[in-house]
Amino acid sequence: KRFEDVFPIIANELLGYIRGEGMPKDAVEWYEKNLYHNTPGGKLNRGMSVVDTVEILKGEALTEDEYLKAAILGWCVELLQAYFLVADDMMDASLTRRGQPCWYKMPNVGNIAINDAFMLEAAIYHLLKKHFRSEKYYVDLLELFLETTFQTELGQLIDLLTAPEDHVDLSRFSLEKHHLIVVYKTAFYSFYLPVALAMRMRGIEDEAAYKLALSILIPLGEYFQVQDDYLDCYGLPEHIGKIGTDILDNKCSWNINTALSHATPDQLSVLESNYGRKDPVAESRVKEVFSQEPIALPRRFETYEAESYTKITELIESVDESGGMKRAVFTSFLNKVYKRSK
Amino acid sequence: KRFEDVFPIIANELLGYIRGEGMPKDAVEWYEKNLYHNTPGGKLNRGMSVVDTVEILKGEALTEDEYLKAAILGWCVELLQAYFLVADDMMDASLTRRGQPCWYKMPNVGNIAINDAFMLEAAIYHLLKKHFRSEKYYVDLLELFLETTFQTELGQLIDLLTAPEDHVDLSRFSLEKHHLIVVYKTAFYSFYLPVALAMRMRGIEDEAAYKLALSILIPLGEYFQVQDDYLDCYGLPEHIGKIGTDILDNKCSWNINTALSHATPDQLSVLESNYGRKDPVAESRVKEVFSQEPIALPRRFETYEAESYTKITELIESVDESGGMKRAVFTSFLNKVYKRSK
Ligand SMILES: [Mg+2]
Ligand SMILES: [Mg+2]
Ligand SMILES: [Mg+2]
Ligand SMILES: [Mg+2]
Ligand SMILES: [Mg+2]
Ligand SMILES: [Mg+2]
Repeated sequence: KRFEDVFPIIANELLGYIRGEGMPKDAVEWYEKNLYHNTPGGKLNRGMSVVDTVEILKGEALTEDEYLKAAILGWCVELLQAYFLVADDMMDASLTRRGQPCWYKMPNVGNIAINDAFMLEAAIYHLLKKHFRSEKYYVDLLELFLETTFQTELGQLIDLLTAPEDHVDLSRFSLEKHHLIVVYKTAFYSFYLPVALAMRMRGIEDEAAYKLALSILIPLGEYFQVQDDYLDCYGLPEHIGKIGTDILDNKCSWNINTALSHATPDQLSVLESNYGRKDPVAESRVKEVFSQEPIALPRRFETYEAESYTKITELIESVDESGGMKRAVFTSFLNKVYKRSK
Repeated sequence: KRFEDVFPIIANELLGYIRGEGMPKDAVEWYEKNLYHNTPGGKLNRGMSVVDTVEILKGEALTEDEYLKAAILGWCVELLQAYFLVADDMMDASLTRRGQPCWYKMPNVGNIAINDAFMLEAAIYHLLKKHFRSEKYYVDLLELFLETTFQTELGQLIDLLTAPEDHVDLSRFSLEKHHLIVVYKTAFYSFYLPVALAMRMRGIEDEAAYKLALSILIPLGEYFQVQDDYLDCYGLPEHIGKIGTDILDNKCSWNINTALSHATPDQLSVLESNYGRKDPVAESRVKEVFSQEPIALPRRFETYEAESYTKITELIESVDESGGMKRAVFTSFLNKVYKRSK
């Protein structure tokens, strides 16, 4: 709630800026709708994790000013995600997002949503300049956002080439491809970026600390995405808040890639002729094969989850806290993620 | 030619980077096609004007290293333009650009072009970091690109809201709207950005010098765009290298706005029922009215051109050269633009 209350502040700063540039009323109102439709309304995990991490690193409550600055960085991560999602929904021809129509599906929007996505991204750098220009770490913030943006776009590109929405070709899939897509498309911006921003805000300058954080947060992000993929098929709709569509949508998910790497020839041919078809009967054939031995996804997921937990816990234990880093940054992430059902 | 030869160097740097990140072969090849299809191939005026300006400011020939750095900044401006144009063609539903199909119209591209546009933008910041990270003015370069991007997107937004490709409503048009669209959508990135980048590279730090440059280059950019609009209707196809389509496309151009502000009631109704229709007969009715008194665009353009030239010349004469600025920076632009027919 405290975090959410910061959004209108930054929206007003952005709208005040463009009003001050003499933009006509209809353009100001359009940008306002764009900002409010696309930025709040999600789970805000990424944004709030910036604030949480700054608090853990400080080790005591934040001042008003510190809270505001951390929350602004958090909202910049949410703006970055909004930018990606507006575009992703257009490229995937999706219809809804967070229980409402996708932005490009709203009345009179259509392809204007491309420029609207750009303007969500531009908001980040306007806010960074306004609030951080005089900080020693300003250029580090700029580079963090800019590099993470490129990485996420690379992940999106491999995803688009590997799993086009309208053309099924399972020979392009592999667990290595899945790994690459997940790391680039999700883990950098969802896990590393929020923590690295918080570390910069706390004045951590040792590059080795960033490398170490990366080496823990990327596996954590991958584990999170594997869960997301698994829950898309095996989670309860009342827990995950939606009905999974990864099989229908030809997604390059952990489920299909794990299945492909363990399938018998008969199972393989069922997968090949039923995966990624917009047909609920084909979908249930795929689900059936997913659960059959030797594929047995529930059993393999249990093993994967246990191994990931052990591996990440070991990485966290190796963290040296003398340079200002805290193991609790990572354990708080891991505890939120481990054995989640939603 | 020397400028053009720098493009393969930067393309290889970008492709080497993503190869080094472990991107699959198809993704590297895709990015290569994206870069080459969209970045070179235009007139390269904006990119080359960075190099020209650095040379004028230095007052003697550039060293190899200076040339390369200026050319990289120039190509970053061209990458920024490529990013805008890929998206603009999608939003305008255009079919061709620079004599070849628009990128999104190429086989298998479609909406992936949205992410491809993002990756053209990302290239800019990768190159700036690689080549300018250790320069004192690095953060100024970042801010120049980031702020100009936001301004151009604002211009695009007003343009999209004022002149939607599929809905004609001349009551939204006005010369003030035209001014705002031209300044934000074109003048900042095409005129101010290249000069400001060159000034940074030459070590000019006085903020007043940037304000002064802006105060000359924005009117110059506006004058350039008015010419572009005028030539779309009155230029010779063999000079301008294309057949103008602004009337058919419902463009918010200088021609229609000037016509609207001087039309008789009868002329107004001809314009209202014929502008922006995809119909060559309607187009020629509009052209006829454009040339009739009291609208008389050729006469009004001649006056506009003479007045602009005088005004800009006066602005240039007032430039103080003691801080490293040179009047020749502006006169070289003005001479390229004045009374051009192509
Ligand atoms: Mg999607
Ligand atoms: Mg997608
Ligand atoms: Mg999912
Ligand atoms: Mg266009
Ligand atoms: Mg356009
Ligand atoms: Mg034109």
